[in-house]
Amino acid sequence: MATQLEKSPLAPSCFPSIPPIGGVRFAVASAAIKYVGRTDVMLAELSPGTTVAGVFTKSATRAASVLDCQDKIGRKFTQGAAIIVNSGNANAFTGKHGNLAVDSITTAVSNHLSIPKNRVFSSSTGVIGEPLKPEKITDCLDSLIAKLDTSGIAKAAQAIMTTDTYPKGAYSTIKTEDGHVMLAGIAKGSGMISPDMATMLVYLFTDAQIEQSALQDLLNEVNATTFNAITVDSDTSTSDTVLLSATGTSKIHVDAENSAFRQGLRQVMLDLAHQIVRDGEGASKFIEISIQGANDDTDAKTHAMAIANSPLVKTAIAGSDPNWGRIVMAIGKSGAAAERDQLKIWFGEILVASDGWVAPTYREEDGAEYMKRSEIKIMVDMGIGTGRSTVWTCDLTHQYISINADYRS
Amino acid sequence: MATQLEKSPLAPSCFPSIPPIGGVRFAVASAAIKYVGRTDVMLAELSPGTTVAGVFTKSATRAASVLDCQDKIGRKFTQGAAIIVNSGNANAFTGKHGNLAVDSITTAVSNHLSIPKNRVFSSSTGVIGEPLKPEKITDCLDSLIAKLDTSGIAKAAQAIMTTDTYPKGAYSTIKTEDGHVMLAGIAKGSGMISPDMATMLVYLFTDAQIEQSALQDLLNEVNATTFNAITVDSDTSTSDTVLLSATGTSKIHVDAENSAFRQGLRQVMLDLAHQIVRDGEGASKFIEISIQGANDDTDAKTHAMAIANSPLVKTAIAGSDPNWGRIVMAIGKSGAAAERDQLKIWFGEILVASDGWVAPTYREEDGAEYMKRSEIKIMVDMGIGTGRSTVWTCDLTHQYISINADYRS
Repeated sequence: MATQLEKSPLAPSCFPSIPPIGGVRFAVASAAIKYVGRTDVMLAELSPGTTVAGVFTKSATRAASVLDCQDKIGRKFTQGAAIIVNSGNANAFTGKHGNLAVDSITTAVSNHLSIPKNRVFSSSTGVIGEPLKPEKITDCLDSLIAKLDTSGIAKAAQAIMTTDTYPKGAYSTIKTEDGHVMLAGIAKGSGMISPDMATMLVYLFTDAQIEQSALQDLLNEVNATTFNAITVDSDTSTSDTVLLSATGTSKIHVDAENSAFRQGLRQVMLDLAHQIVRDGEGASKFIEISIQGANDDTDAKTHAMAIANSPLVKTAIAGSDPNWGRIVMAIGKSGAAAERDQLKIWFGEILVASDGWVAPTYREEDGAEYMKRSEIKIMVDMGIGTGRSTVWTCDLTHQYISINADYRS
Repeated sequence: MATQLEKSPLAPSCFPSIPPIGGVRFAVASAAIKYVGRTDVMLAELSPGTTVAGVFTKSATRAASVLDCQDKIGRKFTQGAAIIVNSGNANAFTGKHGNLAVDSITTAVSNHLSIPKNRVFSSSTGVIGEPLKPEKITDCLDSLIAKLDTSGIAKAAQAIMTTDTYPKGAYSTIKTEDGHVMLAGIAKGSGMISPDMATMLVYLFTDAQIEQSALQDLLNEVNATTFNAITVDSDTSTSDTVLLSATGTSKIHVDAENSAFRQGLRQVMLDLAHQIVRDGEGASKFIEISIQGANDDTDAKTHAMAIANSPLVKTAIAGSDPNWGRIVMAIGKSGAAAERDQLKIWFGEILVASDGWVAPTYREEDGAEYMKRSEIKIMVDMGIGTGRSTVWTCDLTHQYISINADYRS
């Protein structure tokens, strides 16, 4: 049984008032897949001509719905499309049954909306290893379709939650040279109902007109520095999915070179990525880690992720301990190039270490005072090149252990 | 200030009665480097002709003493040798001062024992980023040398501890075709005095006569499946060191092909490796993870370490939760080859998953009962090749967070 968790202390003050996106309608239902007394199915209907791009978990044990989505991305159709998502059951590691359940659900949506089955994308999140009963979802389809609504995105963000402590949404009105286009997205992050695992699901919608290949290029590029630059606990879900749909109803054409759109897309994706970190299991502090001066950007990201995933760094921050030695340790173990005596480390504006030792101006009490904040910035200059990378994570607290060890026995 | 930790529940019942090793004498001293009321310096004197092999951390930010040892290993000398170790200060990330401290200590030992400086190996473990005052150690040398004793190994194991909750030792009397040789070793594992990091230090001694290159080959080979097959929290120290010294006083010659010696060496090294895991910070369960049927041994170790380092697997085990879905997740994210539907997973003798789903014979209550044990075995058959690997780790508990986050603020 899931335990009701308190809202993260790092949560935004409210869900944003997202305006309708042309060509997208939402509906939700309570199918009692696992939870009772809450919604757990979300349907998004997309207008004819919508292009869809996606990025997915690289897990070798990924779920049936992920494999199905990957197979469908990139195909060209002029008809409408749909996204159907359930929470409460991940339909992961359920053998052949998993494939049959995905087929059954996507076939039913295809028939109900009169669109090709190859235009129906599905995701599932929640318990793994338990069979998903597709009829629980397909039985809701008539009622879902009757309720489709252009202003239903906030309810959709609620329905895809597992033990997220708040729904996650973001939007941007993007001014291109040819006029305004709308972009909005919803996300779910780390949650826990035993036996399961955290999953990140993100759905982004725009009324811009974008070719599928350009849409995929934009998504890949922006994803690298947003959703692929966050970590809660270094564990990767079998179901991680980001889908970006462009309905084209604005009649404003956007190509892969459009910097205004790319910038707007990055703003919305980064906002959602940060919201996922802020709802990381047990998070009490939001941490930004920036590396500069590495051999190249890849090395910079390797160092940044080594720091972000180090249990010793994350527990020190949980304890408001300015333990810069652990940052040196994480850099040392990352495997990317580093020269011990070239490192510079800052906490916010405070220079902590340089020339292979503690900085002569550093005072432990300044570091300790800085570490009491709920938002921490760590910057490292490797001093050997021009590579840079920024990643975001949260601290590792007793609450993380409680969520993942204590709530079931 | 370090907090006195309770002895690990997984500790062995006592320190073994290790017989003297020919050609090795030990002495300890209380130098008040950081701790008071306990020993914190260990000197081991090795007879003329001793060969020394070593393996070290691969950290890019390794400590001055590690760099110095690495430079000395492999050189040929006929004179005696010495190992000097202090606890309480790691002399890591202390810039040029660190190199000067190592030079000052090894020069003094060299002069006092009339052996070349290149035959003096040093290690330091404890606080990092604070200057080590070499005179605290060199001032003790006269008294250390006066106390050198062939039966001092148990006291040596005590002196190198940081916040280890028990001293670690192991030995073997190895029967070769030419007669018996003795092998003994001591180790320290994860400890914590802020601001610092866990360090593994291991010193092994034998009276066998072994060429340096053969000794190094043997150490490298056995190290791969012992000290390099354990993990507490995936974080790598800047000071990890294993030194193996062969004094030759038994006059029994051993070469790299000697299977009796290799087997004895592996037994002692594995024993010490397990003792380090059993004293892992906050450990309440000892976990063995065996992979078979992987593409090759390297892939098998990648899978095993992904499981052993997964915070979600380690917290589930801490909570006695038979959460096999998290093992599937860890395999999926490891990056090594896996086929979801070929996996088989066992807890001890209990088949948990097969054919891409929970095993039809598996009952959740059997898994839950098994997980209550303090020693857990997880076995995975990847079903795609002949690669195999076994690694050892401990669970991730509230006590780990307490040790690393709460004891300082």
